[in-house]
Amino acid sequence: MKIDSLRKLFLEELRDVYHAEKQITKALPKMAKAATAPDLKAAFVQHLAETKGQVERLERVFEAMGKPAKGKTCKAMQGLVEEASELLEEDIEPAVLDAGLIAAAQRVEHYEIAAYGTLKTYARLLGEEDAAGLLQETLDEEGATDKKLSALAEGVINLEAV
Amino acid sequence: MKIDSLRKLFLEELRDVYHAEKQITKALPKMAKAATAPDLKAAFVQHLAETKGQVERLERVFEAMGKPAKGKTCKAMQGLVEEASELLEEDIEPAVLDAGLIAAAQRVEHYEIAAYGTLKTYARLLGEEDAAGLLQETLDEEGATDKKLSALAEGVINLEAV
Repeated sequence: MKIDSLRKLFLEELRDVYHAEKQITKALPKMAKAATAPDLKAAFVQHLAETKGQVERLERVFEAMGKPAKGKTCKAMQGLVEEASELLEEDIEPAVLDAGLIAAAQRVEHYEIAAYGTLKTYARLLGEEDAAGLLQETLDEEGATDKKLSALAEGVINLEAV
Repeated sequence: MKIDSLRKLFLEELRDVYHAEKQITKALPKMAKAATAPDLKAAFVQHLAETKGQVERLERVFEAMGKPAKGKTCKAMQGLVEEASELLEEDIEPAVLDAGLIAAAQRVEHYEIAAYGTLKTYARLLGEEDAAGLLQETLDEEGATDKKLSALAEGVINLEAV
């Protein structure tokens, strides 16, 4: 199928981020299990619940676009998740691992911030206001999660890792 | 080598982003060549020059830390670059390709924003003020590039792709 319109590109990118979110729902439980600081464990568990909500929200975006929810391998997220997995296999002090896990999670958040920012802009341009509203909700959540992780890193986790 | 301190984690992440930047210097000429809008072509060419400066700045960070500049495979950037390459192989309208290229570039920018944000925070905590200053410079550049790409997408490129 030729990608001959922004609408088709939008659908391609929607499928990419849908697959990305599903990968994150699989990675977060491992990250929560590996984290040692209780606050960080709790942050990952909470973000897992939020991510599941974001998957459902994407399904509503597909519905608003009249298309079936379908993923398309997101190689960038595969790489991001693989980097986090490698960290778990390193010979690493628990407090330093916590710092590394936050760093990995923030890279994931930023992928999503870029992806949802693009998608929301496309939706608005295509006159898909329902989809744009849903995408903006998730974009706001991802931004808040990134800030929360920064505060946790700077206030607690990094200090314990020094 | 056991990663038993934030200093060692910092060096690991410095090697990751050094390899990431080198991958970007290889990807950008292809993206500039593929872009059709002259403004986008120019933006990629300008960002290539900036990226080469960022590679040199990273070499100064390694020097400030008393370590040789050395990369470590950044799988996340491999995935990001691969996604951009796949786009070039799609059957896609030139104007839509331009929109997709900007989207891919913004994901790359956001990876770097997350990575440099973490590195700068670590450097400051480690009392490495010279390194922190250099990393902050690049962080500011990446933020400015991301904003510039957003403006270009919203003002010109996306409109042509609709």
